[in-house]
Amino acid sequence: MSHDINAVMQRAQKAARTYRNTSPADIARFLESIAAEIEHLGIDLIHTAMEESNLPEGRLTGERGRTCGQLRLFAKHVLEGSWMDAVIDKAMPDRKPFPRSDIRRMNRPVGPVVVFGASNFPLAFSTAGGDTASALAAGCPVVIKGHPAHPKTSEMVFGAMQKAAADCGLPEGVVQHVSGSEFALGQALVQHPATQGVGFTGSFVGGQALMRYAQERDQPIPVFAEMGSVNPVIFLPDTLAENGDQLAASYAGSITLGVGQFCTNPGLLLAVESPELDHFQQALAAALAEKGLERMLHLGIQENYQKRLKAVLKAKGVTTVHEPVEEVDVLEAPSALATVPADVFLDNPHLHEEIFGPFSLLVRCENIEQLSKVWQAVGGQLTTTIMGTDTDLEQHADLLDIAEQVAGRVIFNGVPTGVEVCDAMIHGGPWPSTTDSRFTSVGTSAIQRWLRPVCYQDCPDALLPNALKEANPLGIWRKVNGEFTK
Amino acid sequence: MSHDINAVMQRAQKAARTYRNTSPADIARFLESIAAEIEHLGIDLIHTAMEESNLPEGRLTGERGRTCGQLRLFAKHVLEGSWMDAVIDKAMPDRKPFPRSDIRRMNRPVGPVVVFGASNFPLAFSTAGGDTASALAAGCPVVIKGHPAHPKTSEMVFGAMQKAAADCGLPEGVVQHVSGSEFALGQALVQHPATQGVGFTGSFVGGQALMRYAQERDQPIPVFAEMGSVNPVIFLPDTLAENGDQLAASYAGSITLGVGQFCTNPGLLLAVESPELDHFQQALAAALAEKGLERMLHLGIQENYQKRLKAVLKAKGVTTVHEPVEEVDVLEAPSALATVPADVFLDNPHLHEEIFGPFSLLVRCENIEQLSKVWQAVGGQLTTTIMGTDTDLEQHADLLDIAEQVAGRVIFNGVPTGVEVCDAMIHGGPWPSTTDSRFTSVGTSAIQRWLRPVCYQDCPDALLPNALKEANPLGIWRKVNGEFTK
Repeated sequence: MSHDINAVMQRAQKAARTYRNTSPADIARFLESIAAEIEHLGIDLIHTAMEESNLPEGRLTGERGRTCGQLRLFAKHVLEGSWMDAVIDKAMPDRKPFPRSDIRRMNRPVGPVVVFGASNFPLAFSTAGGDTASALAAGCPVVIKGHPAHPKTSEMVFGAMQKAAADCGLPEGVVQHVSGSEFALGQALVQHPATQGVGFTGSFVGGQALMRYAQERDQPIPVFAEMGSVNPVIFLPDTLAENGDQLAASYAGSITLGVGQFCTNPGLLLAVESPELDHFQQALAAALAEKGLERMLHLGIQENYQKRLKAVLKAKGVTTVHEPVEEVDVLEAPSALATVPADVFLDNPHLHEEIFGPFSLLVRCENIEQLSKVWQAVGGQLTTTIMGTDTDLEQHADLLDIAEQVAGRVIFNGVPTGVEVCDAMIHGGPWPSTTDSRFTSVGTSAIQRWLRPVCYQDCPDALLPNALKEANPLGIWRKVNGEFTK
Repeated sequence: MSHDINAVMQRAQKAARTYRNTSPADIARFLESIAAEIEHLGIDLIHTAMEESNLPEGRLTGERGRTCGQLRLFAKHVLEGSWMDAVIDKAMPDRKPFPRSDIRRMNRPVGPVVVFGASNFPLAFSTAGGDTASALAAGCPVVIKGHPAHPKTSEMVFGAMQKAAADCGLPEGVVQHVSGSEFALGQALVQHPATQGVGFTGSFVGGQALMRYAQERDQPIPVFAEMGSVNPVIFLPDTLAENGDQLAASYAGSITLGVGQFCTNPGLLLAVESPELDHFQQALAAALAEKGLERMLHLGIQENYQKRLKAVLKAKGVTTVHEPVEEVDVLEAPSALATVPADVFLDNPHLHEEIFGPFSLLVRCENIEQLSKVWQAVGGQLTTTIMGTDTDLEQHADLLDIAEQVAGRVIFNGVPTGVEVCDAMIHGGPWPSTTDSRFTSVGTSAIQRWLRPVCYQDCPDALLPNALKEANPLGIWRKVNGEFTK
């Protein structure tokens, strides 16, 4: 290995001693400084990322905005302080039969975190992306394993982070960067005793391997792996009748957005047999055919897409509705649409798996009961979407109950692609879409992954962390003797 | 196996469909009704528990009070509603470059939960104890695996719960009870596909086995196992000089409380060499010698205690300070105190392990640096305690930083035994004291173990859960567009 992982993790551990007690104001300043330094890299960063990822300039400029916006949102969130979950139960010296001690608790950082950069968001989910921003916000030093698909982009962003750390007077171990594509490197990072948490966005196989490494440790640690999803979309009868063409247009856009390289790509469409479904199916195929060819992130993804697509289109009972273009340039990925009867789908688990790229499989169901069965057969999902008119939703209100159990986010009359970075967002879901459905990797709640509660009993006020001091010097919301107060 | 586990878990799954949508008011009524029914069992329950556990009447009466108080506290907590973590980010249709959808999220129940009753709290941590109360509060049906050490007590309490469920019109699968001592029974419960969470309090070996079963599933599920702790207590120099005799008296009480059968029993005492430490050591030995003999919960625990105690007292470098009485009746457990130099302790990991019973090991350190090393060598703990005068705490303020990383609860100038059931309590800690340091098994936050967030995007108001409806019909605290409001 090109890196001395032990030295890296020891530096992180040393930095953790300072950084865990760095004030919210100083952490916020650091996050804002990272955002400013990334912007300061200017068009060079965009051009480097374009070269390495094949993504267009507009998309990368937008993604940079999202990355810096995310860092600034976490800066605000750190100061707001509700993430500390400060709870105070004051002493009751006269309580009978026993007095009550003064008991206070708050969330504290877990320690050094390892973040694996994701290939499909070279800025927003890589080096200084959501995992890194949330871990730094929590007070945890971060060791970033740069993604080998965009090494120069990753180094540039890391340079900006290093400069921000130095400017803010933080120890050098607060952010570190290692690169390499060997499996052993990832394993060494996850299994180093100083590592206390892992963030990953990628394949099921990759996430599973990291989880296994983490469980093999003397002290198991949490791995937050976001591993993919087919994001089932339910098209109800009345909306197919009323809005078929419009739905086809918007879903052709969602399926091909970013060459289908989103974990929220709608890979599975479910509907009940009807003439309107026939019409929608044809309209969707036609709309997809009008989309141009675009290049994927790297050869590995493109080859995998082509191989898996071929296998699905040849599977028994599957009918191709929109044929993928055969003549494609290096890295280009043709979109495709296929359909399959529900009973065939239910019998073939291979059809339930994600195909990363601009493809969707339309499952035609005999009735709503069979549709519900298909929906629940595909395992946990990041998102699920219900498309329906008011009439549809009135008639099928009970579908929400299934939706909630299938996915972390339930969307009504929209597309699953596009994940808002906000307080209420949940980008996570039941197994196998993620390793831990109780947490999100997008939105301010992502900070919760890097915290654990500590309880202080009869601690002198001077020794308490500021968040728990009697005078509430941070001015944060706290629950005191059962009442929320500032 | 005497039970058809598949039938049991299917009943739980069916009940989950109703119970997940049962209103907070109805859940609160159910919890209160369980408390009333348990009280209604009267002295019969206490006598049965005394017979099966060897615990005295006063302790069991107190424990019943705690059990019913806990159920009522969760009833209040369910209504208070902050555990739902309702967050609303309203739509911004005019935002540039893209409009924002309406995004709302809240915590929802995970589904059927399996609770393993604990032997050392036949009421408060068994059938209707903290795990069960918190899971029912969360909206999860519970399958209780009764502890084989108190089968009649468990059946009686379960009878009270069944009556409460029927009176509240809840489906029979909302609480179920299975008994048996075979390992295969526990494994079948944890590995049934309907099971979505597991609560356990007991040995490291038991907790580890359950965790392994849960990870072997197609869909891994969380196991919350509280597995034990030596609960290190730091005695600082000035308090030993000022309060030696008083400390000896209170710690003799804490070490022997409940025949040492508490997960918060102070099994490890740390101090720096001094004449005052010599005095404290002798005073503690004398105070322990004055305590009478009491009977342990069952023969397995008593035999294990005697065997492990003998091994530790014979270990190289360990000196017995208070000899255990040799002549004991069946089930009686003699208290003991031993001492060991820090370097010997650091070299022998066997000495770091919990000995469940009225025993404590005093580690004599050369200086505060060596003490810190010993403290950090013993692994994650439920609690750690710092005993010190104001002078001590001023001089050693940095010890809190270590304490926070060692344990889930840090106690100042008290004893670790006695766990308050309140909002701020954390009864949990880093590995190996529990399987998940992010959660607590005592206090209202224990409800968080049985929840996961669900996000609703552009969901029509009529379909939203009440907690997220625009009008806030439950009247709970919510974060709306970044501001906390009712």
